[in-house]
Amino acid sequence: MEQRKMGDFGGIIHGGDYNPDQWLDRPEVLEEDLLLMKKANVNCVSLGIFAWCRLEPEEGKYDFDWLEKIIQRLYENGIYTILATPTGAMPQWLTSRYGEVMQVNAYGVRNYAGKRHNYCPSSPVMREKTRQLDTRLAERFGAHPGVIGWHISNEIGGNGGDGACHCDKCQDAFRKWLQDKYGSLEQLNAAWWTSFWSHTYTDWNQINSPSPRGEDLVHGQNLDWRRFVDSQQRDFCREEIKAVRSNSTLPVTTNMMEFFETLNYFKWAQEMDIISWDSYPDWHSGADELQTAASTAVAHSLMRSLKKRPFLLMESTPSVVNWRQINRLKRPGMHELSSLQAIACGSDSVQYFQWRKGRGSSEKYHGAVVDHRNGEDTRVFREVARLGKRLEKIAPRVIGTCNRPRIAMVFDWESWWAVKDARAVDNNLNYQAVFVDFFRPLWEFGVDVDMVDMEGELDAYSVVIAPLNYMYKKGYAEKVRSFVKRGGCYITTCWSGEVDDSDLTFTGAHPLEDVLGIKTEEIDVPDGYCENSVRYQGTDYRITGLCGLVHAKGAEVLAEYQNDFYRGYPALTRNAYGDGESYYIASLNERGFLKAFYGNVLRERGLECGLQVRLTEGVVVNERSRVAKDGEQVERIWFLQNFNREAAVVELQACYENVETGEKVTGRLELPSFTCAVLAEG
Amino acid sequence: MEQRKMGDFGGIIHGGDYNPDQWLDRPEVLEEDLLLMKKANVNCVSLGIFAWCRLEPEEGKYDFDWLEKIIQRLYENGIYTILATPTGAMPQWLTSRYGEVMQVNAYGVRNYAGKRHNYCPSSPVMREKTRQLDTRLAERFGAHPGVIGWHISNEIGGNGGDGACHCDKCQDAFRKWLQDKYGSLEQLNAAWWTSFWSHTYTDWNQINSPSPRGEDLVHGQNLDWRRFVDSQQRDFCREEIKAVRSNSTLPVTTNMMEFFETLNYFKWAQEMDIISWDSYPDWHSGADELQTAASTAVAHSLMRSLKKRPFLLMESTPSVVNWRQINRLKRPGMHELSSLQAIACGSDSVQYFQWRKGRGSSEKYHGAVVDHRNGEDTRVFREVARLGKRLEKIAPRVIGTCNRPRIAMVFDWESWWAVKDARAVDNNLNYQAVFVDFFRPLWEFGVDVDMVDMEGELDAYSVVIAPLNYMYKKGYAEKVRSFVKRGGCYITTCWSGEVDDSDLTFTGAHPLEDVLGIKTEEIDVPDGYCENSVRYQGTDYRITGLCGLVHAKGAEVLAEYQNDFYRGYPALTRNAYGDGESYYIASLNERGFLKAFYGNVLRERGLECGLQVRLTEGVVVNERSRVAKDGEQVERIWFLQNFNREAAVVELQACYENVETGEKVTGRLELPSFTCAVLAEG
Amino acid sequence: MEQRKMGDFGGIIHGGDYNPDQWLDRPEVLEEDLLLMKKANVNCVSLGIFAWCRLEPEEGKYDFDWLEKIIQRLYENGIYTILATPTGAMPQWLTSRYGEVMQVNAYGVRNYAGKRHNYCPSSPVMREKTRQLDTRLAERFGAHPGVIGWHISNEIGGNGGDGACHCDKCQDAFRKWLQDKYGSLEQLNAAWWTSFWSHTYTDWNQINSPSPRGEDLVHGQNLDWRRFVDSQQRDFCREEIKAVRSNSTLPVTTNMMEFFETLNYFKWAQEMDIISWDSYPDWHSGADELQTAASTAVAHSLMRSLKKRPFLLMESTPSVVNWRQINRLKRPGMHELSSLQAIACGSDSVQYFQWRKGRGSSEKYHGAVVDHRNGEDTRVFREVARLGKRLEKIAPRVIGTCNRPRIAMVFDWESWWAVKDARAVDNNLNYQAVFVDFFRPLWEFGVDVDMVDMEGELDAYSVVIAPLNYMYKKGYAEKVRSFVKRGGCYITTCWSGEVDDSDLTFTGAHPLEDVLGIKTEEIDVPDGYCENSVRYQGTDYRITGLCGLVHAKGAEVLAEYQNDFYRGYPALTRNAYGDGESYYIASLNERGFLKAFYGNVLRERGLECGLQVRLTEGVVVNERSRVAKDGEQVERIWFLQNFNREAAVVELQACYENVETGEKVTGRLELPSFTCAVLAEG
Repeated sequence: MEQRKMGDFGGIIHGGDYNPDQWLDRPEVLEEDLLLMKKANVNCVSLGIFAWCRLEPEEGKYDFDWLEKIIQRLYENGIYTILATPTGAMPQWLTSRYGEVMQVNAYGVRNYAGKRHNYCPSSPVMREKTRQLDTRLAERFGAHPGVIGWHISNEIGGNGGDGACHCDKCQDAFRKWLQDKYGSLEQLNAAWWTSFWSHTYTDWNQINSPSPRGEDLVHGQNLDWRRFVDSQQRDFCREEIKAVRSNSTLPVTTNMMEFFETLNYFKWAQEMDIISWDSYPDWHSGADELQTAASTAVAHSLMRSLKKRPFLLMESTPSVVNWRQINRLKRPGMHELSSLQAIACGSDSVQYFQWRKGRGSSEKYHGAVVDHRNGEDTRVFREVARLGKRLEKIAPRVIGTCNRPRIAMVFDWESWWAVKDARAVDNNLNYQAVFVDFFRPLWEFGVDVDMVDMEGELDAYSVVIAPLNYMYKKGYAEKVRSFVKRGGCYITTCWSGEVDDSDLTFTGAHPLEDVLGIKTEEIDVPDGYCENSVRYQGTDYRITGLCGLVHAKGAEVLAEYQNDFYRGYPALTRNAYGDGESYYIASLNERGFLKAFYGNVLRERGLECGLQVRLTEGVVVNERSRVAKDGEQVERIWFLQNFNREAAVVELQACYENVETGEKVTGRLELPSFTCAVLAEG
Repeated sequence: MEQRKMGDFGGIIHGGDYNPDQWLDRPEVLEEDLLLMKKANVNCVSLGIFAWCRLEPEEGKYDFDWLEKIIQRLYENGIYTILATPTGAMPQWLTSRYGEVMQVNAYGVRNYAGKRHNYCPSSPVMREKTRQLDTRLAERFGAHPGVIGWHISNEIGGNGGDGACHCDKCQDAFRKWLQDKYGSLEQLNAAWWTSFWSHTYTDWNQINSPSPRGEDLVHGQNLDWRRFVDSQQRDFCREEIKAVRSNSTLPVTTNMMEFFETLNYFKWAQEMDIISWDSYPDWHSGADELQTAASTAVAHSLMRSLKKRPFLLMESTPSVVNWRQINRLKRPGMHELSSLQAIACGSDSVQYFQWRKGRGSSEKYHGAVVDHRNGEDTRVFREVARLGKRLEKIAPRVIGTCNRPRIAMVFDWESWWAVKDARAVDNNLNYQAVFVDFFRPLWEFGVDVDMVDMEGELDAYSVVIAPLNYMYKKGYAEKVRSFVKRGGCYITTCWSGEVDDSDLTFTGAHPLEDVLGIKTEEIDVPDGYCENSVRYQGTDYRITGLCGLVHAKGAEVLAEYQNDFYRGYPALTRNAYGDGESYYIASLNERGFLKAFYGNVLRERGLECGLQVRLTEGVVVNERSRVAKDGEQVERIWFLQNFNREAAVVELQACYENVETGEKVTGRLELPSFTCAVLAEG
Repeated sequence: MEQRKMGDFGGIIHGGDYNPDQWLDRPEVLEEDLLLMKKANVNCVSLGIFAWCRLEPEEGKYDFDWLEKIIQRLYENGIYTILATPTGAMPQWLTSRYGEVMQVNAYGVRNYAGKRHNYCPSSPVMREKTRQLDTRLAERFGAHPGVIGWHISNEIGGNGGDGACHCDKCQDAFRKWLQDKYGSLEQLNAAWWTSFWSHTYTDWNQINSPSPRGEDLVHGQNLDWRRFVDSQQRDFCREEIKAVRSNSTLPVTTNMMEFFETLNYFKWAQEMDIISWDSYPDWHSGADELQTAASTAVAHSLMRSLKKRPFLLMESTPSVVNWRQINRLKRPGMHELSSLQAIACGSDSVQYFQWRKGRGSSEKYHGAVVDHRNGEDTRVFREVARLGKRLEKIAPRVIGTCNRPRIAMVFDWESWWAVKDARAVDNNLNYQAVFVDFFRPLWEFGVDVDMVDMEGELDAYSVVIAPLNYMYKKGYAEKVRSFVKRGGCYITTCWSGEVDDSDLTFTGAHPLEDVLGIKTEEIDVPDGYCENSVRYQGTDYRITGLCGLVHAKGAEVLAEYQNDFYRGYPALTRNAYGDGESYYIASLNERGFLKAFYGNVLRERGLECGLQVRLTEGVVVNERSRVAKDGEQVERIWFLQNFNREAAVVELQACYENVETGEKVTGRLELPSFTCAVLAEG
């Protein structure tokens, strides 16, 4: 077989987490697995996650033979391996001998052994044990032709809390990190506004992590602590990467968890060769599937945006999860649709957790390709196998393509942390939900969107949307100013430009007052007092959350509030600036408002859906395209997805090719419920 | 007076918890108590519960004189004593001197002094102090003619949590218990499936109790810990029993708390001479009284089933409790009705907590026969006194009878623990509520039911019902197979036969596939996605919870799902097997379904209510019968109970005798609200 | 300028908390503050709150110069200073060096540094550091002509919990306090009813504070612990007062927090020269403003009642707070109305938290007179400035007047603690909400009310109302008896006269059975079982909570229950006693009942609103009057407040003077929404 690797696999990866280490005493099960994998059109598995106790059963005594046998057997059968470092869970011999490896929580109490991601990232013991094991793994398997890449640990930071360790070693590391950042206590005191409530530090050793047992109301300190936690976890991961790279040139990834609050994935992306993530949408939970589908699309888009390249869907369930309160079966079709949605948004893989259900412990009822009883004779297995076939068929057209949006949304972890920590008028504010609200209408229009953080490049885009962009980091306002000046369209909202990198409020005018052409004054939450609405182009839209009171200062007023003492105040403004323009949306409104407003912007900027189609509700489109060396698009593929619980009809207004059948399609196209058609230029 | 004892009292016991130790400085109160007890037709009290600080005011200094005086005075007045060991609460001198006697919680933090059942069952100090005191109590009172039995501690395990102590001594005892059970770590690792998440133990000392501070997701470990906690508490209790028996031949009981999760009462029953329990239904809390009444009936039935003999109602309130958020007065009649319900279900007593309200601390407003202010001049006192008279009247007909059901329901503590711990499709699943749902229609039909655990005998019954019978212990499947083969009717549901004794899933077919004639595949919770229903004999019944997708494999399909992709799948199957038959109910449905289904089974098996009556809703019947030495029933008594908030009319279809009036009754019988008629064969 | 001081300021104080210590590095901000204060008609600020780290940056190194400069600059500009001791928050050098200064919580865990009111009131170190700093502050500023009073600490006890420290030093102090109180353990055991659950103490060292980790069900112990916590905090405060008085004759206050459960403000009032408090009503949160306005009025009334003298509104927000989940802007007018409501109820000041929003930490978005961006050009600033002008105008008529009610309500902290701790029929009982329910109808009638505790004087009043007066302290029953005998009208309810000072129930008759003419039996909560109501003068009123079953024993029955087994039982009784009368309200009923009943009592006693007016709903009146040396009222001022969200019209039935315009007003008077008219006898 040819030499393959993650990111250059030559096909769509299909398979998932495989735990033969749970069945080593049942060789017939392992043999059956091989047989079933082939029937399921599986070409790749992830091995070794959580297998530390099998790989190093006693301190310093390594046993890799069983793993090599399995990798080899798989390889001989055409199945590749993504090999994990097993640091997601520590073995008992480690935790019982070295207390320091376990995390201390925010109350100052050290965890007991167990759970996942319970390790202290500052522990020298943990770092050394990890280094030794990872190095040996790389030595042994780094050149095995069946291994295509490294999977560092698993869902890093996912300790069920905030991913932080508050032990003395971490406190010391935090102080060191602060000294490096601020140089002097004077600088730190200013940044943290410590004159408030007599918080002024006069000795570095007085500083500790925020804690509900003491102080957790100093926003600057909270923010720096989150930065430190992210940085320390990243540093630990970097050491793992270094260890595997010491003996291997294979690409490296770690499986991310979409909008995972603890870790700033834009920074993590820089450590990785390829992005991968675990997607577990809660299908069939709402009145319809659209909010779930939109939330999943935004997460896929974030992952693709981290490197602006295809990513890997590293985990997903072929049937149910077991960790929500209610876990419904994926209805027929939904497995294929949701898997193809990942491909549509930029994934080059469909991987599962898990291949086979274990017999014991908490995940024994988590969905799997193979259940406890019925082998290949299940609905789930058949759907997986069928999907595998489809992936094989479309792979030649898909591999090498990517989504290439002209619109970006600003998503920045540090601003997220700050806006969540803020105590202001609406302490129920759900920043992430609002972010999805600002994304969903574009998704409904069939228009792809990238996410950028505040350090990202804006000039590649035509439109940049920054909802609730609370924090403006150093240089951000200048970057936006220049983007608009050169012709860009910048759309932002109330509760933006409030604080700087230290979570200190700006004083004086809004940092983008010139670009936006408005002056901000108060902010309100009308809900519960009196219904209020925004009139835009003759239609009234209900206000659903924050409501900024601003004054036009040069900007054109496009919509106004309809009630209360701020009746007539601007609700939407437009300001021409340089060659571009900016919009300020003063309030959070019901969904229709953004749909109407975005529609106008897309039309003006010529950014409508690339597929010539009249969509119906619940049917959406993503576009992946192939670019020649000269940058010209040489092929475009569309994924037409019907998330409705019934069949839907769309109207194709040009002639296309069905990628899977080769047939030409145009005009009326019926999509059964939960299906996806893959089209190319006809 | 004649020599009496619990279980052979020669009448119905009537009285309750009496705390003269709170009033020793007010002798006039004690004298008034005697007078009022006689007026209230009280013949027995429980003494000494929580009186440790009075019985042993200093370490090793005992003072029993006050107690002897009271027992003697009561005896002289025709009132017998059930004497408690006072270990339910520890004295201050003990807790302040010996820290080890107090429990350590799951977070590793030792409790402070106070509360009840705060003792560590592994503490040598606690065991020794208890042994000394109990031995002396037995020495002094074991032969007193006024004392009729021993009441070991009080509501054992009721520490407001899970009854467990996690101290080092308990951890050691747990490890020892595991060594005895498994012999080797290899066996333990296999049973606990520790290869999952690198949990493998390589040294016994690595093992600890489950803790939210560390690991609590290893189901096998959780299950063994619960078994150990139960076993250790039982061992402590066994030592108390040994101590009192050292000097006394009186029967022993401890007051249980119905479906108390912590303790496996089937095992506890083996330690006791007689079963007793504390019943506190929440009357007047719902739209009607029926769910409360059914839940109470199932609890009484469990208690009777533990020894298949009459039990004692050891505590109940004559008016209100004070520990719910809202505590409503028992309406007129309800006290008599609920007390007679206990008798109807197999109790030979009606005992109260408490005789007299104390003046201080948390139970001062708990209902009592005697309140703070009004002596005998209260509604409550009058109702208690009237009930006492009725009990005296019916006693000669009741004593010696018992309920003798032909139907059993499988209730097994270990399966309960496992099904609660499971993380699967419906993590809101309330096993106990479902169990009551499966009991209630039988109760409405006037058909008594026994509970058996998986170690119990099935062959005495005609029908065995096993809802959500998640765990199949070793030998259980064989027992059921043999039961059906010999002609029994076995009724079970989805979510049964999933795991073995170690909470490891079975692989391959369902363990009773042959008996049930079905193959199981998936399980779903349709709720919230789409309404689904089951059509049975022409009627549609809404599905209310779990919904198994199974395939008939020999069984006859009696009902089918009506919607969703599993429309037409079997919802109820019947399979003939040997001389018997089995039914599989695939989904949890609204109440009417079981009523219809059970009605058919009862008719076919001739198991209808023994009283010839046409019941109306809210009127139920229990039957107690007397059996001659040759096993023949020589007398049957029925308790016809109207739980409606209005009068109800039933139609007697034979002639009966009203046990209390001696009158013949037949045809139309009106029962006022909250009343109970006691009938015998006319 | 003339010499002024708190309580003799010669005008209405207007200003608020000022934190220049957060801006010392920005002198231009401080200069702008001065300018803006003048524009805002501010005449007084509070300085130094939380400034410990600026005043004593290192242990023993004091720096007061910056403060002196600011006080001086303010003084030169006509702005006075209320100077705070900065103990509300401890500096880092203190907490990091002396662990003992931080509180230990009820679980026995010491807090980390941070937050407010985290100090242990028993810590000798904390006391000494405080004494030294306070003494020096008084030395330096005690005679400064710009300083008008001392503001001891800030919101004492407000540690987010119950204000208690459970450290060893506090445990020792508690034991000492108990020894002083009880003399012997025998007395203590009797008072705490420790024979219950074997709680008897045999050594003082066995006693600890109540804890959820151990025992918290001994009501007598809980009550004494609360008394001790209050006493210990008061003792600490007394030492602060002593320190500032060592070098200053200025009056002393501390800012209270209305019905703050931890501290018995009737006792604290005795330590203070003048009462002040912080008021943060949740305007615009309900269907209308009336419940919020009534709750605010009752709190103002409590504060005035503490010394029966005008008090200071020490904090309020000029716009929003930021610590509720949803914080709505004060609508136009509401700031003036709510500020004048404070004046109307007896305040001689309107002070704000805060003058200027800080840039960092948790209160940066708390409302302020000056925001981050717009200086004087905001709606909020303009409203504050306008109010300042109004206050100046009305001051000459207001200063020297006070409200002088003829009706008192009994509010006693110890009874509150006990009734909250009680576990009885309704454990959802919200005592404080019921208290407001009993106040609101009087407020709607335009009738002022004082609050008295059980040690207060009753004879000054015509009517005394004591709802849910659970505890009767020693001497209270006698006091009421004498009050009624002399002609007073005493109104009380069920759930009164239950327990004595030790939270031990009374035995025998209700302590006021003779005065009330009733015998009490049971108590119920009909809600959820059956709707019940009270018929009074032909109208039925729904019962909404507790429902006592009592029997008339001499009293006249004025209303009866309409349903359930207690249909026909007395619901309202009247009993003539001596020259007076008592009313017993047996149940908690919907609002209309009290309105009807109070209306009759007010008419009979001639206690109607002093302003001749026909009010409409939502318009209320308070009256302040000036009394000559001979006790005669020489002037009466009325504050006519419209809390409706629309304009309202009232009918003046005499001629009055508008205090601000000098105009005569009579007949129809329209009040715009959220306005207050100030009238005097015309």
